[in-house]
Parts: sequence; C-alpha cells; structure tokens
Amino acid sequence: MQSDAEKRLIELGIELPAPPVPLGAYVEAVQTGNLLFLSGTLPAVGRNIAYRGRIGGEVNQDEGRAAARQAALNALSIAKEHLGSLNRITRVVRLGVMLATSGDFVELPKVADGASELFQDVFGAERISVRLVYGVASLPLNLPVELEVILEVA
Amino acid sequence: MQSDAEKRLIELGIELPAPPVPLGAYVEAVQTGNLLFLSGTLPAVGRNIAYRGRIGGEVNQDEGRAAARQAALNALSIAKEHLGSLNRITRVVRLGVMLATSGDFVELPKVADGASELFQDVFGAERISVRLVYGVASLPLNLPVELEVILEVA
Amino acid sequence: MQSDAEKRLIELGIELPAPPVPLGAYVEAVQTGNLLFLSGTLPAVGRNIAYRGRIGGEVNQDEGRAAARQAALNALSIAKEHLGSLNRITRVVRLGVMLATSGDFVELPKVADGASELFQDVFGAERISVRLVYGVASLPLNLPVELEVILEVA
Repeated sequence: MQSDAEKRLIELGIELPAPPVPLGAYVEAVQTGNLLFLSGTLPAVGRNIAYRGRIGGEVNQDEGRAAARQAALNALSIAKEHLGSLNRITRVVRLGVMLATSGDFVELPKVADGASELFQDVFGAERISVRLVYGVASLPLNLPVELEVILEVA
Repeated sequence: MQSDAEKRLIELGIELPAPPVPLGAYVEAVQTGNLLFLSGTLPAVGRNIAYRGRIGGEVNQDEGRAAARQAALNALSIAKEHLGSLNRITRVVRLGVMLATSGDFVELPKVADGASELFQDVFGAERISVRLVYGVASLPLNLPVELEVILEVA
Repeated sequence: MQSDAEKRLIELGIELPAPPVPLGAYVEAVQTGNLLFLSGTLPAVGRNIAYRGRIGGEVNQDEGRAAARQAALNALSIAKEHLGSLNRITRVVRLGVMLATSGDFVELPKVADGASELFQDVFGAERISVRLVYGVASLPLNLPVELEVILEVA
C-alpha cells in the first residue's frame, strides 16, 4: 500500500534538500523490480557541512543524532527525485547506519534513531525498516554518519 | 525447495533463544517479495551478554567464534518468529559478519565461520550464503560481533 | 537489456583472473530471482597478493585504486563463472567499497573509483551502480580493500 509521505512532510514542516551529487562513477539510486537501492547518504547539504569529525570526539551524541537525521533527509530527496513522489514508497526495507566513532563511544543505537525516527514520522510505524548499526574507522569527507537505504516501491 | 531446518534443529539439540527486542525505531524482520531482511543480530540473549569487548583483545578467537554462532541463533529466532517455520527458508542469500577487532587481528574468516557453519548445519551445504567479513571500529553495547542476514523464503 | 560486457573486455584487453576460492563455509555467488549477490571480493589473485596493509599507511592512494580495480576484476570473474557470460548482467545494482584506512586518510571516494570506473568501462555508463564507501578497522588477510557487489541479471 502506498504511503502518505508527501502529506506528512508538509504536516511536519519538512522541506527536502536538493539531492546530493555523486562524488564519482556512480548514481544515487538504482531500481530493480520493486526494490530501490540508494547510494550511501551523508549529512551534508551541497557544500554545506554542519557536522565534521567523530561521534564521541568533535561531534557529540545530540549532534550525531541531528547528522543522522540530515543524512536521512538526503535519502528522501534522492528517492523523491527518482520516484516523482515519496507516496510510491510502500516500505522502508533496510536502514544501515555507519557511524565514525571515537574512543569508547557505544551509544550507537541512540544516534541511529535520528534517522529511524525521521523515517517513522514520514512513513508511519507500519512501514519502518530493519536496521544495522556499527562504528566505522572513517567516512568520506570526514563526516560522522553514512546511511545505507533499501526501499520497497509500488 | 523448502528446507528441513526444523528437523535439523532437533537433531542438533539446538533450542532457539527468544528473539531480540529492538533497541530503537525499527523492526527485526522485513519481507519484500521472496526476500527476508533481518536487523543486525548481536551475541546477546536478552540482557545476558557472555562476550563483551574486541576480538584479539578481551575476546579471543574461540570466544569470537562462539559469539558469531550465538548471533546466528538470534537470527534464526527472528526468522522463525516472522515465518512460523524455518522450513520456509529456501536459501541463506547473504551473511555479513562485522567484527570489532583489536590491534592486528586478521583471522576474521575463522571467527565468521562460527556463524556460517551453524547455517550450514541447519540448512544444508546446498543452501549456504555468500559472505562479507570485515572489522569495524565499534558495535552497539560493546559487543564483538554483528551479523547482517538476507534470506530467501518460499 | 543485456550488456556488451564480453566484447568490451576484449576491447579493453582485460583477461579475468581465476575466480577466488572461499575461505570458509560460504559460496562466492547466490542468485535469487533477478539478483545476483556476490561474496566480498578482495584484491588478491590466488595466493598472489600485491597490496597489503592500510590505505594512507603502507598502501598509497594510487595503489589503493589499483587494489579496488583488482577486487572488481575478481567480482567479474565470480559473476562470469556463475552466469556463463557477463552479457547476462543488465545492471550493476550496488557496489560497496570497504577500505582499511590509516590515520586521517579521507580521499575514500577516489580510491573507490578504481572499482566503479572498471564497471563503467565494462558495462557502460547506463548500467552503473549506487555506491557505499567507508573505512573499516580491518579486513581479511590484512588486505586494503573489500567490495560488496549486487548485480541484476536477465
């Protein structure tokens, strides 16, 4: 069943950023059958980077949550550009949250919820995804978060 | 073709743990078409955590193998709760093994086999998966292993 | 639509290496529906390992690119063994590039392009994938690159 995501975006007062531009020889979205695979999304809006560094280091837990949310908005922007309307998304299948962490930071799930809760708000609790969360050694542009997203579309 | 997984579990004397409870705004399993995606599974049984720390550090290679096997049992528990019966699984499509490693530990494939061999024992050699193995910087709850699992179901 | 990959390989003067041998209880390729999932591919040809260590450390950026390309050739070799002909590949759906990085190395996308550009050369710009790139803490055999590949096949 299609979602009410476009209406929810308006209700939530969310304006999507422009979709990110690939940093190499790839595209931002590939659809195969009913699955839409997205490229890894980062917490940057164009050249505007609010959060740089590691969570538990230069970036604190709340900033990490905000960065995860921003990366999730980029994912929605890519999906909308590809699909025309986010209402065509019937399920968020999988969300992977890769976090550049520092030292002994272990509250990874709380940071990841910055992305998960946005998707829940936009698509509804009945369309939430499975989730993978882990700390990585480094991310492109020294950013603190990268998301992996697989969507089911009508 | 369906598997004999339920019968194999009994033959192997394996009792599945209760499925894990999500740590945030996500679910443990999402089915789309014939694919069942699971959330990242960890080597914990409820609040009972036998292995904590890094492989090559506080956790040795054999304990890492046992932790990978325990995470694989959690994956089976999630799948059974979603499907009713593990016999409906026709193929383990992909297994990803993320290991929190310490220093120069490079015997990652041997640790990962703790999970792969359990799946092989339960589903048979003709249903084994592709595999990705790599060392990560940190995992939720300071656990040593997280699994990524994609299953094909009838 | 099928690709001209086999003809392109000849035009590019590329001879594929023998497919890698699994390091444990898994297989190198699993097809489910129209999706072909590959095991993580490494920059090794049999026992011949040209690049060992971390990018930004023992392995410089150009060597990292070459290692990514070599891992991509191994992915093609696995796909060819499974499919008979690479022409059956209709799309490179997703490419994940896991890099073992050292210190402050952040030019991950440039290294990843070593794999992406090979796929673009072989399959054409209209079949390029989405991409995930991140730095990991360690990889099997102390290698600098591992690739995650999902293909769409006719």
